[in-house]
Order: sequence, then structure tokens, then C-alpha cells
Amino acid sequence: MTQLERAMRGEVTPEMEKVAKEEGIGPDMVCQRIAEGRAIIPANLHHKGLKPMGIGQGLRTKVNANVGTSSDCPDLEKEVEKAKAAARAGTDTIMDLSTGGDIDRVREAILKATPLPLGTVPIYQAAIEAIRRHGSLTGMEEDELFEVIERHAKGGVDFITVHCGVTLETINRLQQQGRITDIVSRGGAFLNCWMVRNNRENPLYQSYDRLLEIARDHDVTLSLGDGLRPGCLADATDRAQIQELILLGELVERAWAAGVQVMVEGPGHVPLDQIEANIKLEKRLCKGAPFYVLGPLVTDVAPGYDHITAAIGGALAAAAGADYICYVTPSEHLGLPTLEEVKEGVIAARIAGHAADLVKGIPGAWAWDEEMARERKALRWDRQIELSIDPEKAGRYRKERVPEGEDTCTMCGEFCAMKLTSELR
Amino acid sequence: MTQLERAMRGEVTPEMEKVAKEEGIGPDMVCQRIAEGRAIIPANLHHKGLKPMGIGQGLRTKVNANVGTSSDCPDLEKEVEKAKAAARAGTDTIMDLSTGGDIDRVREAILKATPLPLGTVPIYQAAIEAIRRHGSLTGMEEDELFEVIERHAKGGVDFITVHCGVTLETINRLQQQGRITDIVSRGGAFLNCWMVRNNRENPLYQSYDRLLEIARDHDVTLSLGDGLRPGCLADATDRAQIQELILLGELVERAWAAGVQVMVEGPGHVPLDQIEANIKLEKRLCKGAPFYVLGPLVTDVAPGYDHITAAIGGALAAAAGADYICYVTPSEHLGLPTLEEVKEGVIAARIAGHAADLVKGIPGAWAWDEEMARERKALRWDRQIELSIDPEKAGRYRKERVPEGEDTCTMCGEFCAMKLTSELR
Repeated sequence: MTQLERAMRGEVTPEMEKVAKEEGIGPDMVCQRIAEGRAIIPANLHHKGLKPMGIGQGLRTKVNANVGTSSDCPDLEKEVEKAKAAARAGTDTIMDLSTGGDIDRVREAILKATPLPLGTVPIYQAAIEAIRRHGSLTGMEEDELFEVIERHAKGGVDFITVHCGVTLETINRLQQQGRITDIVSRGGAFLNCWMVRNNRENPLYQSYDRLLEIARDHDVTLSLGDGLRPGCLADATDRAQIQELILLGELVERAWAAGVQVMVEGPGHVPLDQIEANIKLEKRLCKGAPFYVLGPLVTDVAPGYDHITAAIGGALAAAAGADYICYVTPSEHLGLPTLEEVKEGVIAARIAGHAADLVKGIPGAWAWDEEMARERKALRWDRQIELSIDPEKAGRYRKERVPEGEDTCTMCGEFCAMKLTSELR
Repeated sequence: MTQLERAMRGEVTPEMEKVAKEEGIGPDMVCQRIAEGRAIIPANLHHKGLKPMGIGQGLRTKVNANVGTSSDCPDLEKEVEKAKAAARAGTDTIMDLSTGGDIDRVREAILKATPLPLGTVPIYQAAIEAIRRHGSLTGMEEDELFEVIERHAKGGVDFITVHCGVTLETINRLQQQGRITDIVSRGGAFLNCWMVRNNRENPLYQSYDRLLEIARDHDVTLSLGDGLRPGCLADATDRAQIQELILLGELVERAWAAGVQVMVEGPGHVPLDQIEANIKLEKRLCKGAPFYVLGPLVTDVAPGYDHITAAIGGALAAAAGADYICYVTPSEHLGLPTLEEVKEGVIAARIAGHAADLVKGIPGAWAWDEEMARERKALRWDRQIELSIDPEKAGRYRKERVPEGEDTCTMCGEFCAMKLTSELR
């Protein structure tokens, strides 16, 4: 039985216990939120040594880090190192988006590299195997796609992105809509190609029950992908995007009815003043299912700094109710990230999530900031460094710039406002 | 006559013409906004070669970069280099916050280093000269303070931060309020020390008319400092802060009556869900005077990444109506920034400002993002790099990671969604 099925029977599982403890709330509350579909614990039955993580309403905003090979960079070791670096930087989950090299081996290695929940996008591997086998994506057979999904499920993958909302109907709406960047989701693009070339419906939608069966058998959480997400600000919140979201809302209910845990993925590139509306729409159309957002990036013009454009959008999104933020690294739109950029991406997303948790009323969020404020006032530098979201970087900056034994910093030197005022009182 | 006095007579000055051209709006509109006090052009009569910059309602959100020596790092050359680096990165103004070395010489050198408007905080220099002269800040005489202010005015400084709102009344409110971090403004701390030790009112408040006279004579714009700004989230939007803001609102009107251009400074550290209220309050209490915000930082726990915490808050603040954002660098709370961090700080603040300009309806903001989106769709990499907010960084990333002649990037390699979908259509 899945976490959802057990929760519906009022059964508190060991995973729910662990999540409750980590969140500082009662196990019954976790159980109830899962029963209602408002929270999930992606925990594949075959994932040994998993550290279970709760995602959803009332829980700390979670962060995901993407790693994975591409055809240009098929090196397994590099991606395993990135997964470890992401974990050290505090990511809550990892997704393996590999499209190069021996994809099964890469996935197995990444799964073993950390105890964190692992997500994948099986259509990537199915498409690439089809190209290798048939010479083109068009030749991919439905059974081949489901075989890959089952392989991931049996291999212990905790959640899979499935672009079930890229259908003949939504693609038609997309074409009527007109867009600057058309489809920018890789999975969405694969499926759209296949559908158009074969003139057939998306098998992930057509055979959704088959997908649900696999998901239920192994307790794989479905992450309903937004294949039609906007790839630029001008395309945000358009009819194609919202049409897909309506459809995903229907699929959420079908997942629940089948005992399958489910969340919904969201944009992408969204102007500041449309972010809250996007979150409210998802929560309403998808009846409270957890919302997993990529960014959103609040401008298109900052490649090299998209961890920042995403942190702005992510903070706003999470404050408005998004539950789970996918990191964006500085190299987004330019290439695969380096180890250092993986870390920068995770920290930026964690900052966004925490800024939101402070106003979401998540237990413990305020205590962290208040403690830092008190240590700052007391000029206790060692504790400030320990309390920093990245003690390594904060410690390095401090060490580089401060004369030995100094209680202030080089910014104000002896004329430190904190110090002056404390001496006065 | 000042820009404000001329605007009130309906006279369009050459500075207004230049600002109108740069903003892509009519000179009459610029003139009207200045006459109403809703916009300013800090332009000291003695600042030769100044590139005039408009700040206020309906104008592009502007960015300031702070540079300056401290007692630990008194090196003039370094700070001049930082001013130049900030200008190259696209800052709109520079503030010299020097407190170390030969402060007059540093200011003159920074003023000459770029054509941008320059701001200072004269109380810093007055306090340090008093310490050098009298052995302690307490000995500073009112005339000495005003002499420094006049020196800056005659030296071509375009705007000065004056913490006129740190008064016996607001300090009393602060003490009744109770705070974790007390006073964190350096200027506020200097004045508070002086006032408490001498048991006297703040001369910048007591003799505000004297300040206005100097400002009017040289057309120095007053930036009414928030000496009681919160230094942590828990202190945000408290009675002390708002009491000071009420008082600053009164001083705004007195400045206008004296023909003096004026803006108001704002926090600081503010939780996400209090930012909009802070902006609306300033706009209401200060009758539409331009609002200059530092951050606001949306969490206290991210030293090393405060350019990001500030970009989140700055984007929200500017979208809600803030007109001018002071950059925060990654080394905020830890020390003085390096050249590279100055650049990172400027770019992060520009991202925040631009994300806001997109939703403020600033002319030209959308066109930039749309052009980037079209070039991205067309996979025209050279143009994407040129259009980037930091072409140097984006170009370097691209160069490092892409095989010669490739039209996609290493992230998706041959399986690029843009490419796949374009080939299909």
C-alpha cells in the first residue's frame, strides 16, 4: 500500500513519523494532510536507506536540485559529485535528468550517492532509447515508454515527472494561442514531436490508468509535468498553460482515486505580478495538491544570474503557497552547472524557501532569524558563522577580511553601529 | 535655483531634457513630477560633467552602489576602482561612505572617477573629524557638522544622507519599543551617541532650516536617512521605525517649501509580507516623495548571499513603488566587498529593479525581455549574450561550456526543446 492509501485509513507510517519529527508537528497532522492529498512523502517501496521528506501544506518549503548527464557531457562521476555537493548544500531532493551515457548506471549511482528522495523524467530515457533503437523518436512504442517507467519504479525512484498534460487538446490551444518560445519543456517537446509525427494522443494521458498502476504498485509519486510551461515572460499565464493546468487538476483526482501520491509542476518564466495568481490557480484547480515550481524567473534577460531571478520568483511563489522549489543555477540557459554553481543554486533556492517559510508560519523559521539577530547584536562572530545558511562561505569571507581579534568587521571598522550603540546603553 | 524651484515655475531644464530622453518620456512629464516632489534629479550646481539621473514615479528603478574606505581599509585607489567597476556594471549612482584615510581626497577622487551622481553621508566625516580633533564624538560642535555638510555641497556632492529623524522623540519611542538589534544605521548610531551623551536634540533636526539653506544654495538633494531602520526581521515595521517615518514625512514638506529636492530612505531587514505595506506607508506619509530602499533583506540568516536576499526584497519593494534601490553585496554583514562583489551586487540590484520595472509599466522594459525571448527561440547565441544584463559573464559561461559551432547548449545537448519544436513546426 502507498503512503496515501495508508493515510486514508488513518495509519501513521514510519515515514510519516520521521517527517513529523523533522517538521516539528504532530504525526497525525502529517497523516491527515497526506490523506487529503495536500502533502506527499515520495518514498518508493524499493528505495533502501531513504531519508523521507514531506512536501506540502504546512510543511517547510522544500528544494530540489537537478543533476544529470547530457549528450555533450556524459560523465557519470561528475554528476554523482554534483548530487553529493547538492546534498551538502542542503537540497531536500535530487532529480536525475540524464540524457547521455549509460542512463541506467547513472541513475543507480546517483540514487546511491545520497539518502535523499530521487526523481527522474522517464520520457527522456525512453526517447533516447527509441532514437538508438529505431533511428528516431517517432518510432517509440507505448510499451517501450511504460517499460522505462517500470524500470525506474523498480529501481527505487521516488517520484517521476510525467507530462500527461501535453495532449491533442492542449497542443491545439497552444497553436491557437501563439507564443514566442513555443514549448520549452524537454519532456513536453519529446512528446509533442511524437504525437505530431504519429498523429496520436499522448500515451501518458491515453493510458494514464496504466501509469497509475505502476505508480501504485511501487508507491512512486507522480509529478505532473507542465510540458506547456512558458519559456519567457511574454508567454506566461497564457491559455495553453492554463488549459494544461485544468487537465492536470483532473488527473490529480484520478491519481488520488487510485491511491497514488501526486504533485503538480509549475512555471517557469512569470512576471512578478502574475506569480501569486499562478499559485492560487494551481491550488484551486488542483484541489490543494502540492505545487512544485521551477523558478519562476522574473525576467528573461539575466543568463548567468538565473539563480537570482529564480530566487526572487521562488520566494514570492512559496510565500503564496508553493510547496517545493526546483533550484536554478547561474548557468541555466547557458549550459550544465559546475560543482560550485550547483551549490550556489541550492543555497539561492533555500534562501527563497526560507524567506517564504518565515511568512508562511512554518515552525522554527523565525527562531533561526531571531537567533542570528541576537548573535549579530552581540558581535559573536563564531555563532553568526555557524548559524549562516552557508557557514563555509560566510566563514571564508570573515576570515579573509578581518584583522585577528577584531570584534567588528572591515565594513564599518571601529565605527560599528552595533558596537557604538551597545556601549552607550 | 534648484531643479525643484525651476520645475515649480514650469521651466524644463537641460537636466530634465536629458532625463526625459533617457527614460523615453516627455520632458513636460519629468518637469511635472519634479514639481510635485514625486521625482528628483540630484544635480549639484558644482558637479561638472554630471550625467543627470531621474529618480521617482514613472521612471526606471535606479540602483546605487556604495563604496568607501574604512579605518581598516583606508586605501583610496581601491575605492576608486570599485566606483569604476560599479559604473561598468551599470549602477546609476555612487555613494561614498568613507570613514578612513583622507576622506576629502577620497571623495574628490570618486567624484572624478565616473560621471554618475554622487551621494555622501557627511555625519561620518564630521564624527571622525570630531574624534580626531576632540578625542571623542561627544565633543563635535554643531558648526563643525554643518561645515562638513557645506564642504560636501561646495565639492559637488549631488545628494547627502541626513539622519534628521533620529530625535529625542523617536529615540524615546525606540527605547519603549524594545528591539533585538537596536540602532544599526552608522549615521543614526553616531547621532544617537552624541545626543545621549550631550543630552541635546539632533542638530540636523533642530537646525533643519540651516541644512535646507545649504541644500538650496547648491541644489543638493536631501536623502532623509532612516537612522532607526530595523537591523533584523524581528525589528521590522516597529513603532520606532514608523515614528521616524512620520517625522520624515513632515521634513519632506519643509524641504519642498524651501525649494529643496528630497527623497526618503527605507529599510533594511523586512519579512516578505511586510514589504508592500512599508512602501505604501512611505508613499502616503511622505506624500509621494521618492523612496530609496536598502534591500530590504528578507531573511537574516544568509551572510555571504545578501545580494540575493536583498534582490528578493528589492524586487518586491520596487514593484510596490520604491524608486531607488541601494545595492547589497555578497559581503554585507561580513566586510567590505571586493571588486568582483561590487559587480555582483550591482547586477543583483539591477535584476531586482528590472523585474519590478516590467510590472511597473516602465517604457522599454518589456521590449528587452521580448527581444531576448525571440533570440533564445531562434538559438541566436551572439545576440543573447549581447542582450544579457552582464554580457561578460554570460559570454564566458557560454564559451567555457559549448562545443565550437553548436547551436544548442550543454544543458540539453542535441535534445534541445527549442530546437526539437522549431524543427517540427
